[in-house]
Amino acid sequence: MSKYPQLGEEHELVRKTAREFAERRVVPAARAIDEGNYPRDLLREMGDLGLLAPHIPQEFGGAGLDFRSMVIVVEEIAKASPALATVAEVQGSMISYNLYRYAQPNVREKWLEDVAKGRKIVAFALSEPCCGSDAAAIQTRAERRGGEWVINGVKLWITSGLYADAYLVAARTGPPELRHKSISLFLVERSRCIETSPIKVMGVHGTGTAEVKFNDCVVGEEALVGKLNEGFQVVLDDLNNGRTCVGAIGLGIAEAAFAEAYAYSKKRTAFGRPLAEFQVLQHYLANAYVQTEAVRNVVYLAAFYRDADDPSFPMYAQLAKVLGSRLAVETTRVAMQIMGGFGYSTESRVEMLYRDAKATEIYEGANEVILNTIYKFLEKAL
Amino acid sequence: MSKYPQLGEEHELVRKTAREFAERRVVPAARAIDEGNYPRDLLREMGDLGLLAPHIPQEFGGAGLDFRSMVIVVEEIAKASPALATVAEVQGSMISYNLYRYAQPNVREKWLEDVAKGRKIVAFALSEPCCGSDAAAIQTRAERRGGEWVINGVKLWITSGLYADAYLVAARTGPPELRHKSISLFLVERSRCIETSPIKVMGVHGTGTAEVKFNDCVVGEEALVGKLNEGFQVVLDDLNNGRTCVGAIGLGIAEAAFAEAYAYSKKRTAFGRPLAEFQVLQHYLANAYVQTEAVRNVVYLAAFYRDADDPSFPMYAQLAKVLGSRLAVETTRVAMQIMGGFGYSTESRVEMLYRDAKATEIYEGANEVILNTIYKFLEKAL
Amino acid sequence: MSKYPQLGEEHELVRKTAREFAERRVVPAARAIDEGNYPRDLLREMGDLGLLAPHIPQEFGGAGLDFRSMVIVVEEIAKASPALATVAEVQGSMISYNLYRYAQPNVREKWLEDVAKGRKIVAFALSEPCCGSDAAAIQTRAERRGGEWVINGVKLWITSGLYADAYLVAARTGPPELRHKSISLFLVERSRCIETSPIKVMGVHGTGTAEVKFNDCVVGEEALVGKLNEGFQVVLDDLNNGRTCVGAIGLGIAEAAFAEAYAYSKKRTAFGRPLAEFQVLQHYLANAYVQTEAVRNVVYLAAFYRDADDPSFPMYAQLAKVLGSRLAVETTRVAMQIMGGFGYSTESRVEMLYRDAKATEIYEGANEVILNTIYKFLEKAL
Amino acid sequence: MSKYPQLGEEHELVRKTAREFAERRVVPAARAIDEGNYPRDLLREMGDLGLLAPHIPQEFGGAGLDFRSMVIVVEEIAKASPALATVAEVQGSMISYNLYRYAQPNVREKWLEDVAKGRKIVAFALSEPCCGSDAAAIQTRAERRGGEWVINGVKLWITSGLYADAYLVAARTGPPELRHKSISLFLVERSRCIETSPIKVMGVHGTGTAEVKFNDCVVGEEALVGKLNEGFQVVLDDLNNGRTCVGAIGLGIAEAAFAEAYAYSKKRTAFGRPLAEFQVLQHYLANAYVQTEAVRNVVYLAAFYRDADDPSFPMYAQLAKVLGSRLAVETTRVAMQIMGGFGYSTESRVEMLYRDAKATEIYEGANEVILNTIYKFLEKAL
Repeated sequence: MSKYPQLGEEHELVRKTAREFAERRVVPAARAIDEGNYPRDLLREMGDLGLLAPHIPQEFGGAGLDFRSMVIVVEEIAKASPALATVAEVQGSMISYNLYRYAQPNVREKWLEDVAKGRKIVAFALSEPCCGSDAAAIQTRAERRGGEWVINGVKLWITSGLYADAYLVAARTGPPELRHKSISLFLVERSRCIETSPIKVMGVHGTGTAEVKFNDCVVGEEALVGKLNEGFQVVLDDLNNGRTCVGAIGLGIAEAAFAEAYAYSKKRTAFGRPLAEFQVLQHYLANAYVQTEAVRNVVYLAAFYRDADDPSFPMYAQLAKVLGSRLAVETTRVAMQIMGGFGYSTESRVEMLYRDAKATEIYEGANEVILNTIYKFLEKAL
Repeated sequence: MSKYPQLGEEHELVRKTAREFAERRVVPAARAIDEGNYPRDLLREMGDLGLLAPHIPQEFGGAGLDFRSMVIVVEEIAKASPALATVAEVQGSMISYNLYRYAQPNVREKWLEDVAKGRKIVAFALSEPCCGSDAAAIQTRAERRGGEWVINGVKLWITSGLYADAYLVAARTGPPELRHKSISLFLVERSRCIETSPIKVMGVHGTGTAEVKFNDCVVGEEALVGKLNEGFQVVLDDLNNGRTCVGAIGLGIAEAAFAEAYAYSKKRTAFGRPLAEFQVLQHYLANAYVQTEAVRNVVYLAAFYRDADDPSFPMYAQLAKVLGSRLAVETTRVAMQIMGGFGYSTESRVEMLYRDAKATEIYEGANEVILNTIYKFLEKAL
Repeated sequence: MSKYPQLGEEHELVRKTAREFAERRVVPAARAIDEGNYPRDLLREMGDLGLLAPHIPQEFGGAGLDFRSMVIVVEEIAKASPALATVAEVQGSMISYNLYRYAQPNVREKWLEDVAKGRKIVAFALSEPCCGSDAAAIQTRAERRGGEWVINGVKLWITSGLYADAYLVAARTGPPELRHKSISLFLVERSRCIETSPIKVMGVHGTGTAEVKFNDCVVGEEALVGKLNEGFQVVLDDLNNGRTCVGAIGLGIAEAAFAEAYAYSKKRTAFGRPLAEFQVLQHYLANAYVQTEAVRNVVYLAAFYRDADDPSFPMYAQLAKVLGSRLAVETTRVAMQIMGGFGYSTESRVEMLYRDAKATEIYEGANEVILNTIYKFLEKAL
Repeated sequence: MSKYPQLGEEHELVRKTAREFAERRVVPAARAIDEGNYPRDLLREMGDLGLLAPHIPQEFGGAGLDFRSMVIVVEEIAKASPALATVAEVQGSMISYNLYRYAQPNVREKWLEDVAKGRKIVAFALSEPCCGSDAAAIQTRAERRGGEWVINGVKLWITSGLYADAYLVAARTGPPELRHKSISLFLVERSRCIETSPIKVMGVHGTGTAEVKFNDCVVGEEALVGKLNEGFQVVLDDLNNGRTCVGAIGLGIAEAAFAEAYAYSKKRTAFGRPLAEFQVLQHYLANAYVQTEAVRNVVYLAAFYRDADDPSFPMYAQLAKVLGSRLAVETTRVAMQIMGGFGYSTESRVEMLYRDAKATEIYEGANEVILNTIYKFLEKAL
């Protein structure tokens, strides 16, 4: 049985598998990923183990489990490599789910299993230079021409953008004034109409994050994912899944940083005593643990609500995002402080986690945007 | 069903009863309690409704429910009056449970039902001037004389101390060097050997908090509660229950402060707009909500572990205490800031909650002592 | 010489006098003030010593010094009684200065010396129920009738309001739409047209804070202080002086709380050692000291700019207010935490300081309004 | 005149020169330094302009100014490149000063001018693998053999270690039990007895930070800097200078991050408005400014005390370090949050500043060690 009432025994089995995989395969690869190597092989291995899209039915390449399983996997992978966890949650949680739920049969047939198995990569092309967290303002257009759609626009911060075999593109299919009511989604296969260029960022390296330009890309009607002009609702669903996963990534980062700092405090001495004997450092660790447990319960509860189709899910997805990301930033700061120069050096894992942590406060909605959303939800509820 | 997987449907029924009672009976009385009136009648009413000792079997005056029910009651009462919640949790959670579990049959017979029903008050006489949070250092002595025990010492910060009909006294029954291994508990009925004097404090007024002197108080063998020299283990159990309840009090305080500040922000205007339209105040409220939900889940989980006899309970009791108390202090600060002068005046509830909140960081173990304990538990677990 | 380059030797002499007075006269009276006794005698004594309006020329009852002297006095008095410091800074810094600079000769003649000497009390009647920190929205009206003005309106949160011999009233003398451009100031002597009622608040008791109603109060042209419809500029000047003084009050509160907690940590033992030997408490104290020195320099610099007529003054007045008030709230929290139950009891000074501290985040402009102002100043400067 | 009373007109002239140099020469080079290029040329240019060792007499290659000038230079350079500021402050503030004050005449003659002019690099070889912030525990030994000293040991985290022409080495010249009383300093020229290897860290790249091994390095008596066994006092002096400079680096980082985020908020729109119109971001910026001004005054005051030989200097050096470093970490976090994905990318300056900022909480004494020191100083003073 799980220690946490939000989870069941099956989730702890998933955790065991994910953790074993993370320690055996991801930990040794994490620095190579951090140095920029996109973990294509590891995605495939995750797919083979059912860890990439655990919540997708087995017939479509998943493990036939639930969203909590996804979240547990993301947490465990993030302990070893937040970058891999990021790539995996986009591919596994957002793309797979969209293809499963909204894609037209032949598109689903063609792509979903390969995506869920990690054999093909599909990127989620939402953000644009214009408008980061303001997704309803995107400018990429899809214009009908005969029975086809012609797509033009520029996307930014696209995870896996450099290496994707296809892109799930959010594009405007009506007047911009309608904002979220004139956006549709299309699956666009990689071809010469697409240009990608890498973006250099502080952390979560190795995710192939890119600027992606679509120049007169032509797709057929079957490429439409979900209904015409109703793409934004799909995006919102995706974001809620994604934000819950970001909470899990933050949680995993914090746990890994804590573990490394704790171990270091036990073996490193200063002023004639192990660091672990200094009360101030003990309290640093105790406080980190206190907040970690608080955040953990919210992250698992968000996923629990998702699985239960509970109306609390959208709110809890935001809570998980804000809490997990802050936890990651604050715990890595404390962990590095405990580890001193060693923590600041690339010989520690914390050096990487510190840089990666900051991404979680920004991507899939800057925390300020999330807080706006939380307030709006509160107003509706109160 | 409860929204929270740590709770069941029955707990939401308890909550409903407690909330209805709190709103109907406690809210109108809260300021009178704050002005120093010990809520003896309300304790009796809580007893009659089964809200004072919900986790004690019905045959002994309780409601035959569980510890989570206790915690839910404490949270709901704290929203209206943290002082009453404090008195109730000592009487209901700590004293009742001790009498039920450890008292000798005739003592249990004589006292428990009346205590659980709120007809008699028993105070928990643990803290001493010497040693606040260092309970193992207490100096009150119980010396055997014939078949009796003679008790001498001074207790401090005793909730309900002014009005108690009896005291559950922790006393040293062996050499002080043995610290926690030479402490026993005795039930001492109020008599002329006992002197009480009030202590004036910043908040949680009306709890009858007192200094209590025991001058040659004589009790028989049957007054011993638990085994000789093993009283400290009982105390530790009590503290874990008590700390969980303090977490619930902190949670309740925060919820009440949030609710008042939110309502105020909707009706009060400044610079031509309702306060609620200022983004900074929206984020204050959103952040308070974020942390409240995180803390709530830990408080309920602590109680869940207690009911499940899960070994995680002692740790989670500490987490609940630290998180709940900080939440209370921080949320009342933010709430008062939103309400400005009105929040600072006694016309608001927040004025009282702000003062009451600070107690939760101190009583039943200052948070620093709790963090020491958390670190010790971590060391054992890791 | 002063240790701080913002101050001169003369300011340290003022400090010496103020501190000696505070310790000899204010410390013993502080709890009586906290219990609600308006410190009329102490104001007179401060006046006699030149401590009430040090920056007013001697011919008008002051000490002929500067604003830094005022600020130093306020800091030192606040250590002993934030309430007295509050009353004194309104009377000494705001009212005296207004009368000196803006009152018509006969009014100045009649009132200033008595005010500066503490023989008469004049309250600053600005805030209203409608609009707290939004001073430009006040609704009290002054209407011309013949050669006189008739004043009607309700003022709230008026320091010394219960006991004042006169009120400096901000009233609207033009259309409300003009906001800050149709406000004028009048000196209104106490008479039967004025009703006062006390306001019960959490701290800074004994300041006679009141609701004050003006019912058809009639004053002559000579009662106008400053130019017609230009009262708001005077108010802004006052607020800048007042906010600097609030910074000094916050600073004084923090210093007093630190001193009491430090002394306590040295004499109180727990777990067999003085509290002062626990590293966590050492860091609490060290961190409080770090921030106190940072804030102190800003408070003194604000006053320095005021004396130098430096254009940085308005900005620094806001900085002093925000920094000083937060310092007070945070340091009293830490100090009480170090002192535990004793700090929470009225036997400690920290119990009072904790309640008083919160006022400084609210009065003379809630910190959120101050931050709005800081941002506006930044925009102009950058 | 300077706006800050701790500074004089001459310091603002220095600032002007430094800022002009930073903008013209350092800003364009900052990313190359961040990519690992040791800024040897820039050091020489700083030397030529008198910016490398402004407080050293002109006859020895400095500018004949004071320590405040040094601190102003460091602040201004840090805005453009914290790495260059770090290299410069070690070379300019610590090494130059030591050579000037403590080196024997012929060593001083041979090295000082070249060091102050940036033509030669001398590294400060203090930290060791054993003992980071616990400098009194170092293990490198210098053993007398004939009229010479033979030095053996390993140094870690040595700024400029890869590229130095010589090393100022702290070595043990007596029994380790004497801790700080058996440490001496030697100037050791680079030769084949010295092995260096780079250390990869998160930020302040391009500083040539290295592990440096001394294998039977032989130096003469004239290489002794300061008195035998009294090297630690020199080290302490150095650390106080160095910590003040770290405060200035933190200040510079914060100012640069603020400036970039502010500019970005003005030109970037979201949800149809410039970011700068969102009140939450306005408060982020206002709060950053508030704390920056507070820290700035302490940093300048520390340097002022140093120049005045005021006994407050050692304490204020610690305050400057703690405050400046925290300011840097917190302001870069907020700035990156305002800038979102762009701030996280290497196209922004904030991306670099965020990584560099963390170093300031660690190097030249982890903040926890500094707080220990502050508490010790407090105990002596109170």
